[in-house]
Amino acid sequence: MPAPDSIGIVHTQYFTFAADRPFILESGAPLSPVTLAYETYGRLNADRSNAVLVVHALSGGAHAAGYRTADDPKPGWWDDAIGPGKAFDTDRFFVICSNVLGSCYGSSGPSSIDPATGQPYGLRFPVVTIGDMVRAQVALIDHLGIEKLLCVAGGSVGGMQVLEWAARHGERVRAAIPLATTARSNAMQIALSEVGRQAIYADPNWQNGDYYANGRRPDAGLAVARMIAHITYLSEQAMHRKFGRRLQSQERFGYQFQTEFQVESYLRHQGNAFIQRFDANSYLYITKAMDYFDLTMPAGSLAAALAGAAAVKFLVVSFTSDWLYPSHHSKELVSALTAVGADVSYLDIESSAGHDAFLVEVDTMTRLLGSFMDRLASEEGIRS
Amino acid sequence: MPAPDSIGIVHTQYFTFAADRPFILESGAPLSPVTLAYETYGRLNADRSNAVLVVHALSGGAHAAGYRTADDPKPGWWDDAIGPGKAFDTDRFFVICSNVLGSCYGSSGPSSIDPATGQPYGLRFPVVTIGDMVRAQVALIDHLGIEKLLCVAGGSVGGMQVLEWAARHGERVRAAIPLATTARSNAMQIALSEVGRQAIYADPNWQNGDYYANGRRPDAGLAVARMIAHITYLSEQAMHRKFGRRLQSQERFGYQFQTEFQVESYLRHQGNAFIQRFDANSYLYITKAMDYFDLTMPAGSLAAALAGAAAVKFLVVSFTSDWLYPSHHSKELVSALTAVGADVSYLDIESSAGHDAFLVEVDTMTRLLGSFMDRLASEEGIRS
Repeated sequence: MPAPDSIGIVHTQYFTFAADRPFILESGAPLSPVTLAYETYGRLNADRSNAVLVVHALSGGAHAAGYRTADDPKPGWWDDAIGPGKAFDTDRFFVICSNVLGSCYGSSGPSSIDPATGQPYGLRFPVVTIGDMVRAQVALIDHLGIEKLLCVAGGSVGGMQVLEWAARHGERVRAAIPLATTARSNAMQIALSEVGRQAIYADPNWQNGDYYANGRRPDAGLAVARMIAHITYLSEQAMHRKFGRRLQSQERFGYQFQTEFQVESYLRHQGNAFIQRFDANSYLYITKAMDYFDLTMPAGSLAAALAGAAAVKFLVVSFTSDWLYPSHHSKELVSALTAVGADVSYLDIESSAGHDAFLVEVDTMTRLLGSFMDRLASEEGIRS
Repeated sequence: MPAPDSIGIVHTQYFTFAADRPFILESGAPLSPVTLAYETYGRLNADRSNAVLVVHALSGGAHAAGYRTADDPKPGWWDDAIGPGKAFDTDRFFVICSNVLGSCYGSSGPSSIDPATGQPYGLRFPVVTIGDMVRAQVALIDHLGIEKLLCVAGGSVGGMQVLEWAARHGERVRAAIPLATTARSNAMQIALSEVGRQAIYADPNWQNGDYYANGRRPDAGLAVARMIAHITYLSEQAMHRKFGRRLQSQERFGYQFQTEFQVESYLRHQGNAFIQRFDANSYLYITKAMDYFDLTMPAGSLAAALAGAAAVKFLVVSFTSDWLYPSHHSKELVSALTAVGADVSYLDIESSAGHDAFLVEVDTMTRLLGSFMDRLASEEGIRS
């Protein structure tokens, strides 16, 4: 039975648009129709001023909080932060989370059926950008009758979406919480994405993306991509503390090529679990969107790009041991926001948890997000 | 034509031992015979006191300096440091470099012919350790009639061998130069090794290591492993400076899954170049040896392990942006060396070049290694 501070059992909903007139992507390519899977928690108030959009990272989905069934063992991905009395307090706020365009959890993506052929798109699905993901979210917000979001919050690729919302749709957002992210993917981040993609391409079962029909999926390649990514989500110190040099199930070295260190076993488990739940093509599309993300373009500078976000209130958070999106990315963002006169709170949180800190430093994040949301609610006159 | 400070044209030599009585590896497995490919530069002096052993990193070989032919475009891997008048001055020192056991550049390894079957060993080659690699080097030094090395020097996996020499064969070494290395592989280093191995295992052409006969080699998997490794050799800052977000050959995004950023093109090039020159099974064996490396075992502590190195003179070097072997590994080593009363000089060099700094910070390294070697030569009465 869900705990009293759980939102309880939730159901995913679907919003389909652009059925008649295609949604034109940043690339110029048309997409029609477009479906977004989404969930909502709490109730939209009478003046529609209490809506919080929560945006997910690479492998997340619309299921951010609560349970799917009464005996579901695992809640949504940000259940620590969303629920009655939590930071995103569902007694006060109407929380929305939608699966990003290009993903594989109910929103249109490469595994969706292409209406032109009746077959899954595969690589015929057009390449989407963070801007496209966010414009689809704007359509969802319009559909829900929300003129202005109280807040948009998310970490990692979710943080990129938060920044995109603030920079290009600033008039639709009161506050923004970009966590452990960057306004511009740099060479190292692109390199790490690309090596994951190369692992997928290298798997003969990938079949240039057309693996849906014959049941031979690029599991081995996707697992390697996930293992690489998992290392980047942790820190040297966190891995050392968690695994050290401990062996998994034997007393001494086996002198064979088997999984023997605990950290190897952990990585293998992460890889195997991921292939059960994620689509390799979606991995390609979302990492590509990350790589393309550069808020400074076409404006020429971050400050110019953020001119439209001057009225948005920001809480920017980075973590000292995050080497995937190191703190200096957030500091650069904060400088630009300060330059345009935005109201910015910035914290570089001392943590050894690496990039994952935005999800695993629960106590710190609960306090921080909670007090920011409290202040926001009080300023905007939002009560439970 | 080679420059005046080049050692000129060199030839690889081969030393085979353990033909009659097998070489017993740390695992207890026998290996017979054992061949080491090696090169020497300069001349051994009359009292055999001027021998310097240079040890290579993961993908290196015995060819450390000079050229193979008159029109060879590329010198050996540490030509910047080895030659007349250079840090390892061949007018004064007799420099030796041998290819490690398990590698694919002439020393016994998985691609060697197993005399029992007349076929390449593949995974039937026994797993070797850093200790085994060094004991084979001891056999080579014995063969060359050298009682005591003036110095052993190397970086990365080479640095592990330097530490193994000092700790377990301290009476055979006057000085040791471990660069950008660790006395104990930790969870993150093991994880990065393992993910490279997994990329190789995932390639169906790997065929459990028996790919030599049918010509289908695990090139795709090995290329991915190399791309991962290459990222770990650089730093975020170095990659940003080198590649930024520049596109390779187009003006704007292609919105397709092709190589378009310069950093992607660079990685692909590194992967493709590596499969032309390296054996996937050797990659497995050498990374496994790295993962097993833990100088604290079985002694229980680094200081206990280094008790036999108290009379060795050390130059320990780390680099501030090296995140594969971060400086704190070297600092821990220096503490232990200090505790046993060894003569240690330690430098944590400010560099943005990442792990590769030990090879690419040529000016700094030349000065540093040169002055250490000068002092050593003068203390030991070695002249040109």
